[in-house]
Amino acid sequence: MSGFELDRRMMLGAGALGAAALGLAGCKQEPATLAPGVSKADFAGAIKAMRSVVGDEWCFGDADSVKPWSKTYIPDPNKVHTPVGAVAPATVEEVQEIVRIANKFKQPIWTISTGKNMGYGMAAPATPGQIVLDMKRMNRILEVDADLGTALLEPGVTYQQLKDYLDENNIPLWIDVPTVGPIASPVGNTLDRGVGYTPYGEHFTFQCGMEVVLPNGEIMRTGMGSIEGSTAWQAFKWGYGPYVDGLFTQSNFGVVTKMGMWLMPKPPVYKPFMVRHNNMDDVPAIIDAMRPLRVASLIPNVNLMMSASYQLAMFKRRNEIVPDDRPLDDDSVKKAAKANGLGMWNTYFALYGTEQTVAAIEPIIRGALTPSGGEVMTEAEMGDNPWFHHHKTLMEGGLNLDEIGLLRWRGAGGGLAWFAPVAAAKGKEAQAQTSLARSILDKHGFDYTAAYAIGWRDLHHIIALLFDKSDPAQEKKADACYRELVTEFGKKGWASYRTGVNSMGLVAEQYGKVNRDFNALLKNAIDPNHILSPGKSGIL
Amino acid sequence: MSGFELDRRMMLGAGALGAAALGLAGCKQEPATLAPGVSKADFAGAIKAMRSVVGDEWCFGDADSVKPWSKTYIPDPNKVHTPVGAVAPATVEEVQEIVRIANKFKQPIWTISTGKNMGYGMAAPATPGQIVLDMKRMNRILEVDADLGTALLEPGVTYQQLKDYLDENNIPLWIDVPTVGPIASPVGNTLDRGVGYTPYGEHFTFQCGMEVVLPNGEIMRTGMGSIEGSTAWQAFKWGYGPYVDGLFTQSNFGVVTKMGMWLMPKPPVYKPFMVRHNNMDDVPAIIDAMRPLRVASLIPNVNLMMSASYQLAMFKRRNEIVPDDRPLDDDSVKKAAKANGLGMWNTYFALYGTEQTVAAIEPIIRGALTPSGGEVMTEAEMGDNPWFHHHKTLMEGGLNLDEIGLLRWRGAGGGLAWFAPVAAAKGKEAQAQTSLARSILDKHGFDYTAAYAIGWRDLHHIIALLFDKSDPAQEKKADACYRELVTEFGKKGWASYRTGVNSMGLVAEQYGKVNRDFNALLKNAIDPNHILSPGKSGIL
Repeated sequence: MSGFELDRRMMLGAGALGAAALGLAGCKQEPATLAPGVSKADFAGAIKAMRSVVGDEWCFGDADSVKPWSKTYIPDPNKVHTPVGAVAPATVEEVQEIVRIANKFKQPIWTISTGKNMGYGMAAPATPGQIVLDMKRMNRILEVDADLGTALLEPGVTYQQLKDYLDENNIPLWIDVPTVGPIASPVGNTLDRGVGYTPYGEHFTFQCGMEVVLPNGEIMRTGMGSIEGSTAWQAFKWGYGPYVDGLFTQSNFGVVTKMGMWLMPKPPVYKPFMVRHNNMDDVPAIIDAMRPLRVASLIPNVNLMMSASYQLAMFKRRNEIVPDDRPLDDDSVKKAAKANGLGMWNTYFALYGTEQTVAAIEPIIRGALTPSGGEVMTEAEMGDNPWFHHHKTLMEGGLNLDEIGLLRWRGAGGGLAWFAPVAAAKGKEAQAQTSLARSILDKHGFDYTAAYAIGWRDLHHIIALLFDKSDPAQEKKADACYRELVTEFGKKGWASYRTGVNSMGLVAEQYGKVNRDFNALLKNAIDPNHILSPGKSGIL
Repeated sequence: MSGFELDRRMMLGAGALGAAALGLAGCKQEPATLAPGVSKADFAGAIKAMRSVVGDEWCFGDADSVKPWSKTYIPDPNKVHTPVGAVAPATVEEVQEIVRIANKFKQPIWTISTGKNMGYGMAAPATPGQIVLDMKRMNRILEVDADLGTALLEPGVTYQQLKDYLDENNIPLWIDVPTVGPIASPVGNTLDRGVGYTPYGEHFTFQCGMEVVLPNGEIMRTGMGSIEGSTAWQAFKWGYGPYVDGLFTQSNFGVVTKMGMWLMPKPPVYKPFMVRHNNMDDVPAIIDAMRPLRVASLIPNVNLMMSASYQLAMFKRRNEIVPDDRPLDDDSVKKAAKANGLGMWNTYFALYGTEQTVAAIEPIIRGALTPSGGEVMTEAEMGDNPWFHHHKTLMEGGLNLDEIGLLRWRGAGGGLAWFAPVAAAKGKEAQAQTSLARSILDKHGFDYTAAYAIGWRDLHHIIALLFDKSDPAQEKKADACYRELVTEFGKKGWASYRTGVNSMGLVAEQYGKVNRDFNALLKNAIDPNHILSPGKSGIL
């Protein structure tokens, strides 16, 4: 248990005690590997110049001090994702200065918001030799417009902070959180095109306006933000001419210093549901029943169809279900699931509206889902079941850290990598994905702990590759397993929508040469010295 | 009437009889002004080479033959928006060849889908010397997935064609049309970030996946489109890495040859409403009452708040309301409006759902709008009122050409330029916009024929500048008036979301130097010979 507790403290600590963590005095140990073409003198010059901008206490360039930015949770058997420094600016002007210094010394900088990208590498860079540009000190909530339902945030703001602000000011707007919401950043999650659980769950869809420090040090505002006196920066997404906000998501073309987003008005009535299906083979029936409800927006939120094993892994240890040396068989899972009020697949969604609208829609939904073999459950039946409670909280924009429990599933734990291939929302395709994933995971000795996020028309198959990172052999196996998953799914036309820093190039290759060349063309034009986050999404 | 009838025939003809119009034999007259740096020999070489690709009957390079692409409707007192040629490919491979030829001869090409961009310049290029790349022959509906509610189209497909396809195949999906939907192109309208009237009215939001011929002649597919074997190209918008689709909207970075889009499932019940307000000064009350209903998605569609004068101009001539030489005063408008069942502002929206959901929402909406001073009307009261019928048709994705009537409002007619500044959806701001617009229009002797499109959180103020294009003096005045509108609104922070080919640079300037420089940087990188649509959105 202590491994998990330590992890948990570190994750919380790096968020809540960020300033203190950053404030550690640096020792003199040299960093291991500098970036290609960066000499020791360049690196030292960059660190010195950055210190003169942010103060000695907010910039480090030695191996000991960068530890808070080095914990990845993902497989990294060759330890290539360790940064060589970290710098934490407090203002946009300081960001501009840091970018100019990086250009001068050709020193790459890896931008993070709060660095809690759990299962994708946290704060760690994709390639060696980078200084982490940590934005956590820029944590102001610049504006919330209660009438329009909009907010303007700096990247260091956490979901918890935004939620607290809304609560304290009695503003009846909801947030939409991803996993580990309390410590994560709305800006960071949106820029990584993360997904949550309410009707505003497609975070990039609800983003509106950005301020970006470009690699040349200039400040650009997108959408209506560059119009002097405009009140529409957070109201109208597209602006005029080419829409460029998308360029700054999952990429390395600029440092986002402010981001606008839309917030959902709190509905008068919120009613969460869970549909329980009892067989692994129910996958196609569930998805084909859910799809028309999602396409027609009768179910308005991004729903999660959770496998029992994923759910059990949140609150249990693997050896409570099967002995360590045995595969996780369906019978054992089913038994444990049943004992905890769960089926083999448990699909969570909600209705939002008034008593009347919810009452009008519920029978339609029951009429569609019951014939799929599901038991449609509500709070009346599920009461305070912890799994139901977990999703009930998330689907109303509530916060919890329950998913961190995944890290202690196996042995001393601490290993988690998300694999997230995309498909159209069709049952047959999902069934084939589940089957392929299980065969690859089985082969490498890992469990199928997975969910499907059912979007408006797409599926994100969210597979948690859980391993014991304290065991080097297992970490190596997990690495091989992950790469095989990416490769074999790619051959079937299923590529990832997002991936960890350990596999960004691998996934990018699946999107083909023309797309890679186009991204490279943009990168060369916008960031000719390649100083911003090289390796992000496979763009060097 | 004959002026209008001629216009109408031309517009319809160019759509329905496109091939015949294109098939006119070219005469030998030389084009007036070639593009900067293009010699007569280059131009002749480009035309000859393009003819060898598409055949003589689909490529022209003389002044007479390009007339079908020269009618702009917008003010163009100095006739700078006349193309020097036109070419109509039938396949993606032909587009690639044309792009290569354009590069070879440095001959700019101006891409249109069907060229029915009414009030924004139709098919005409922003700068002199361009050959129109007319995509109307590429008009295949490549796929409609009835389960997912998606379509994949070529740019020459019209809304009418898509509607007919759905009807003929009994596919219960709706389209969402802009003004002059029957002859316009879903691809062209979406790429110009046009807006319609149903819950799928923000067309770019419902776009999913593109195929683009890049200026280097390569074919790029966006989103999931580059993954071999993917079934998610039209299901999942974002793909992996930087999201680039936005780069190809309102811009000149590529030629879109295929576009995916989402279609709304036909709801069991559709109920259109009109709220009648009787005073010009009701603007802020209406918008402040509508905003919370829109933000909370209780009203799900893009609604139009139409001024009486705009509505009258669709079906009446100005001299039926006031004599030609008199200003259009509010009393006369009010009288004419009343006689036709209209108020001074008439706001159209609809509910979509089941009998039960519509019945549950209607009282909430009535409870919010009636206190704003509005009379909430439905089909029961408005019956076959032609204006109600018009919006009822549009809000269920129906097609009509009623708005072409605007072209005959004044004198021999034929002059229309949309001015479309953006604001946040707040009453006070709209009131100030209406007041400023009226004072500028009055000064130049034009009428305030306007509407507000109330988006999710924004307002598009849609002002129809209607003038008699057969009168050169009036065209000149309209030009001056339009420029003053853009300039004076800009000073207040209200810039346009979209503009005609006559004012693209003027509007781009309002978005500031950093943004223009960034667009120029992208243009230089992606299209180093500047052969694609120079001048589009002010990007040369």
